[in-house]
Amino acid sequence: MSENVNLFPGVKVILVETSHPGNIGAAARAMKNMGLTELVLVNPYDFPHEKAIFRSASADDVVRGATVVSTVEEAIADCQLVIGTSARDRRIPWPMLTPRECGERVTAAVAAGQKVGLLFGRESRGLKNEELQKCQFHVNIPTGEAYSSLNLAMAVQVISYEILQGKLGGEVPPLEWDRPYADSEAMEHFFQHLEETLIQAEFHDVDNPRQLMTRIRRMFNRIRPDRMEVNILRGFLSAVNKLVSVQKRKI
Amino acid sequence: MSENVNLFPGVKVILVETSHPGNIGAAARAMKNMGLTELVLVNPYDFPHEKAIFRSASADDVVRGATVVSTVEEAIADCQLVIGTSARDRRIPWPMLTPRECGERVTAAVAAGQKVGLLFGRESRGLKNEELQKCQFHVNIPTGEAYSSLNLAMAVQVISYEILQGKLGGEVPPLEWDRPYADSEAMEHFFQHLEETLIQAEFHDVDNPRQLMTRIRRMFNRIRPDRMEVNILRGFLSAVNKLVSVQKRKI
Repeated sequence: MSENVNLFPGVKVILVETSHPGNIGAAARAMKNMGLTELVLVNPYDFPHEKAIFRSASADDVVRGATVVSTVEEAIADCQLVIGTSARDRRIPWPMLTPRECGERVTAAVAAGQKVGLLFGRESRGLKNEELQKCQFHVNIPTGEAYSSLNLAMAVQVISYEILQGKLGGEVPPLEWDRPYADSEAMEHFFQHLEETLIQAEFHDVDNPRQLMTRIRRMFNRIRPDRMEVNILRGFLSAVNKLVSVQKRKI
Repeated sequence: MSENVNLFPGVKVILVETSHPGNIGAAARAMKNMGLTELVLVNPYDFPHEKAIFRSASADDVVRGATVVSTVEEAIADCQLVIGTSARDRRIPWPMLTPRECGERVTAAVAAGQKVGLLFGRESRGLKNEELQKCQFHVNIPTGEAYSSLNLAMAVQVISYEILQGKLGGEVPPLEWDRPYADSEAMEHFFQHLEETLIQAEFHDVDNPRQLMTRIRRMFNRIRPDRMEVNILRGFLSAVNKLVSVQKRKI
């Protein structure tokens, strides 16, 4: 296994009293996809279980490496930042984070060498109030109003995704294109060639242009063609020019 | 069922040749959690199936309301914006969106009254190249390097989450354009007409295609032509066709 599997050393995903082992496996896969590998299970209902391994797909190492403890206190004992997932409507308001803010906080904490615990509650009832009160922040995943209950592993996926986003920091790898973009001069030559060909083909009437060339310029400027694409377009126009000249010779 | 269940009318989640019915159910739940309800299944392997209903939890209405079609073309025929999920490393680069940008684009498209298709590929192999080439954009979910293969329903969850974020995430300025965008069906007709004309003009050798049509599809999908622009392009092709037929008569 490569050494950079764990992009977030010191960040623990803590699943509290999970009922379905399949959810543990699916959560492990979601974590590993986003570079998280430290899984802690608090008093799981049915674990170890083959369903956890099966649903984890290639994250079985995360499942097999999970730490099992019996209390939330134990799970978070060494953490300097504890964030709990929560539904919106709690009686006593708590500092809330969006998933995006959660990702940013975790990135900042990791950069500062802090240990982080992310608490996810039971499938049926989430985290208890006493567990939520051990957290510095609560994070709520926004949903549509009609159906607000996310599957546990899906919640792990969204939070893990935002943690990786926090690390990538909006740094989207630059769009790599296989050819250099055409320059303005090449585009002008193309537009001239196209206009001549449109006239030759009797599609474009210069005495009644109806903004045709304006629309065509707008259209191809939207493309930002690369050099090869301009060559393809001009090659096609040349083929049309040849048809016309053959035709004219025959007349 | 409350009337505001569907926060994104005209936005279709399209699952292509899904193998496991459980994934269909999990995807339906992920969608409904984020306010999306229009599910289209292209040639599903095993559907209807009780596992799809079971995994959907309270989104069984989305599963039962799914439209089943036999081709991707059918699924996207009326869409003006088509986005496909893709791994990053394709031979010919395509305009890429991050999930966040995807959410913003979809929000803008919905505000402009456009129909949107979001394509998700097979569990094993994703979308085929020919399917990806029907898209204006590809969206890639960033992952850690160690394990980049997301479960299908998880991918639906992340994209759906970002679509809801796009809607909540403040005011996206409406996309102002003077004509409605062409839909996929009109674009397919244009591509067929163009290919025939390229062959007629002896520019395109079907026995040695050298990815010509791939490059052309990528180019015109970048444009996202409106209906008038498609009419202009096809008018020009028809003028070329006429030249060819006049020439042939003379020979």
